[in-house]
Amino acid sequence: MLKLKRIAIDTHPENVALLSRSCTLYRAEDFQALRKIEVVTDGKQILANLIICDDNAIVAPDELGLGEQAFRRLGLTEGEQVRIAQAAQPRSLESIRAKIGGRTLSKAEIEAIIADITAYRYSPMEIAAFLISSASFMTTAEMLDLTEAMAKVGNRLDWDAPIVVDKHCIGGIPGNRTSMIVVPIVAAHGLPVPKTSSRAITSPAGTADTMEVLAQVNLSIEDMRAVVEREKGCLVWGGHVNLSPADDILISVERPLRIDTPEQMIASIISKKLAAGSTHLVVDIPVGPTAKVRSHAAAVRLRKMFEYVGDKVGLIIDVVFSDGVQPVGRGIGPVLEARDVMAVLRNDPDAPQDLRERSLMLAGRMLDFDPELRGGAGHARARELLDSGQALAAMERIIKAQGPSTTTHDLGGLVEVVRAQADGVVHAVDCYRLGRIARLAGAPLDKGAGIELLKKVGDPVTAGEPIYRIYACVAADFRFATTDAAQDNGYMIGPA
Amino acid sequence: MLKLKRIAIDTHPENVALLSRSCTLYRAEDFQALRKIEVVTDGKQILANLIICDDNAIVAPDELGLGEQAFRRLGLTEGEQVRIAQAAQPRSLESIRAKIGGRTLSKAEIEAIIADITAYRYSPMEIAAFLISSASFMTTAEMLDLTEAMAKVGNRLDWDAPIVVDKHCIGGIPGNRTSMIVVPIVAAHGLPVPKTSSRAITSPAGTADTMEVLAQVNLSIEDMRAVVEREKGCLVWGGHVNLSPADDILISVERPLRIDTPEQMIASIISKKLAAGSTHLVVDIPVGPTAKVRSHAAAVRLRKMFEYVGDKVGLIIDVVFSDGVQPVGRGIGPVLEARDVMAVLRNDPDAPQDLRERSLMLAGRMLDFDPELRGGAGHARARELLDSGQALAAMERIIKAQGPSTTTHDLGGLVEVVRAQADGVVHAVDCYRLGRIARLAGAPLDKGAGIELLKKVGDPVTAGEPIYRIYACVAADFRFATTDAAQDNGYMIGPA
Repeated sequence: MLKLKRIAIDTHPENVALLSRSCTLYRAEDFQALRKIEVVTDGKQILANLIICDDNAIVAPDELGLGEQAFRRLGLTEGEQVRIAQAAQPRSLESIRAKIGGRTLSKAEIEAIIADITAYRYSPMEIAAFLISSASFMTTAEMLDLTEAMAKVGNRLDWDAPIVVDKHCIGGIPGNRTSMIVVPIVAAHGLPVPKTSSRAITSPAGTADTMEVLAQVNLSIEDMRAVVEREKGCLVWGGHVNLSPADDILISVERPLRIDTPEQMIASIISKKLAAGSTHLVVDIPVGPTAKVRSHAAAVRLRKMFEYVGDKVGLIIDVVFSDGVQPVGRGIGPVLEARDVMAVLRNDPDAPQDLRERSLMLAGRMLDFDPELRGGAGHARARELLDSGQALAAMERIIKAQGPSTTTHDLGGLVEVVRAQADGVVHAVDCYRLGRIARLAGAPLDKGAGIELLKKVGDPVTAGEPIYRIYACVAADFRFATTDAAQDNGYMIGPA
Repeated sequence: MLKLKRIAIDTHPENVALLSRSCTLYRAEDFQALRKIEVVTDGKQILANLIICDDNAIVAPDELGLGEQAFRRLGLTEGEQVRIAQAAQPRSLESIRAKIGGRTLSKAEIEAIIADITAYRYSPMEIAAFLISSASFMTTAEMLDLTEAMAKVGNRLDWDAPIVVDKHCIGGIPGNRTSMIVVPIVAAHGLPVPKTSSRAITSPAGTADTMEVLAQVNLSIEDMRAVVEREKGCLVWGGHVNLSPADDILISVERPLRIDTPEQMIASIISKKLAAGSTHLVVDIPVGPTAKVRSHAAAVRLRKMFEYVGDKVGLIIDVVFSDGVQPVGRGIGPVLEARDVMAVLRNDPDAPQDLRERSLMLAGRMLDFDPELRGGAGHARARELLDSGQALAAMERIIKAQGPSTTTHDLGGLVEVVRAQADGVVHAVDCYRLGRIARLAGAPLDKGAGIELLKKVGDPVTAGEPIYRIYACVAADFRFATTDAAQDNGYMIGPA
């Protein structure tokens, strides 16, 4: 038996074990080819990926080291005795091999795969095998079974309310922070809207990053529940509430691989909404030449897929196609976006109108779910709640309930003005490029970094006139962003 | 800048870096989502997978730790200054995403993928993405391009001889140790036969494991060359000679995932033979109900694929279908197989005749490549070399040149006799099950563990008569193997 040792390394989400090459009880190399070992004690067992260690100070020959995740999941204390063995492959991997060979998976097979993934029995490469084998082809039945399997594992909220609404934007448009306006409007109306959001991984800001400028977002599921019970709405980071642990693990592999298929996106989104206890969902699909969805046909196909799965799982879904030709609002990056959001909520005369109109449209569609407002009165009600200041008051209460941000976030001190190359009219703004420049400038890690747009599509410009400003906090990032913008500033300016 | 620290952990084949969560220069969490970082100094750069560390004794806040592989590949000394950055994804991953989407890859794309993999720029999950995306469909042109790309990277031997022969068995039949008889026969004839073999991963023995009972097999490429130049033949472990580094890396992911497609197998085999400088190759495809290839149609398809790629790359290939209905010889496991091999080479009267005949057939086909023996005289020549003791003498010279084994390997001391359940005739022996039982008994790690077959297909048996013996060295393994054999001993006994 080996003595258990906790090694303070973070190997999220996978389990990692360290065994000394000088181990006298096991030959470390015996386990190397298949990488994965089973760690066993009486009644407890985990699978872990093996690293062989040649430093006795890290792991002694009679010890088994476990990284933080593996140690926590095994649930023993240091010094306890454990055995190890060659890990048997999870049986569900047979189904993945069958899928690679072209077979369709049954509901039971998909459930077994998701159960094994959630129990951390898959290594990242095995998760990749599942994702890739499903990425090239998935039947609608498989997509549905995946959605339900993912919703079933993990926490599930129940709000004891007939209508629980949510909205989700599939992303790709910088500055599109409608959630932070829509949630207080809907909450002010009185419908529960337990919104969880993501942090940016490849974009310059996620809703969680921008909300964090104003309030705490790392709430536990109990705290989230308390906020929603009191204020009807919340805007918290989804990574903390374990609503869809399978999704969190899948995303940890999808993101580095940058694979993003419609089927996997739909299973991910709908499973999370089901787990959050939502009954009604508005899905925003921005369509534009540089957005994620680039044609009407692709948007229609995606809508049909959302509706199909929604119908089957009993989630009422209203899909909205929105204008995805340029960034929304003026700011890109957490501080600048938070400023836009608060300007709209405060009804500032110079608040960005596109962000306001978009938010009212989405909030209106959500309020239309309320039987008392049927007949399309949602939009008028949303405008009333915004114009009267009730939405702002709701936002202030939500911020207070979540806990206001304890640090002040200032705009970056390094500023570069980017100017029009020619006279004319702005024909297009490249969402992808503007997102990239804002990210290079340091967003979302530096909350005050980003881009402030001074001109939008349709605006007339003269050569040399400022079209946007780049803000950065760190000199190296500032240089990266301004150099990139100098090569291609993302604005297409042409004749009027 | 961070100070470089070497961490004595073996993370083969991937690069791993450790960064302190308390690092003051970088926020460790910023890198966590995409996992991969770029480690840069003046003129040198590697990609590494990141682990965040909370133990200053392992990595201090001003240090960057690198595991053995990453440290060696960066090629600096401890204490030198390095910078880190979010790793840009290797461009060739775009091609893999296209492949997932159904596009065929060009030669240039496949070359770029293999170059990136060989330079350790892919993480295991990215390698899995490549393998899985190609596993469900690959064109013949892609298979060919992959073979050539894999052969191009790494070492390449040149023997300055018009004919360099090799043989390869696709595996799956326990006890099938023909290489250890064929190589000395061909070497005795005078044709160069630079044989590299694998160690077992999921089978009870690879040729390298069995040869190791008699001689050193971990030779460097220089030592391998010296042995072949002197003795014409060798039997070394392929993992040590870096002939196909891309293949070694791909296999490190294929094995744990247990994916094994014909296209990837052919690219792997032929690229290694090209790198070894072979000009002529005999491929042995055992066909049987429990073998890897289970139908004549599948065998024919595989033969055509071998021939197609062979023709295109200028490797002359002769594909042989062999009987794969039961294990070959009497022994399964390194010591028992080595005993069979030496009995055949010594012309012992009780040497297993199936192993002898099979080896003569294969050696004959290899000798038929010699223009001086054309017309099918190879088989007679092989028999002459074996019967006269010239093959044995060649084997003894090869063992001496590689270096005789410095330890003696005895048969396991724990022995269980497995008996026939009924009167009748042996109808079939399950290759898969016998391999599994031998492996459970401890083979190949315990060289003396394994199975000795006492009855083969066609032999009459009476109920209670011994059909095979299980040998083990360790009590736990002995119990695993005998329990498994008691459930299903793998023998089908029926009426005569």
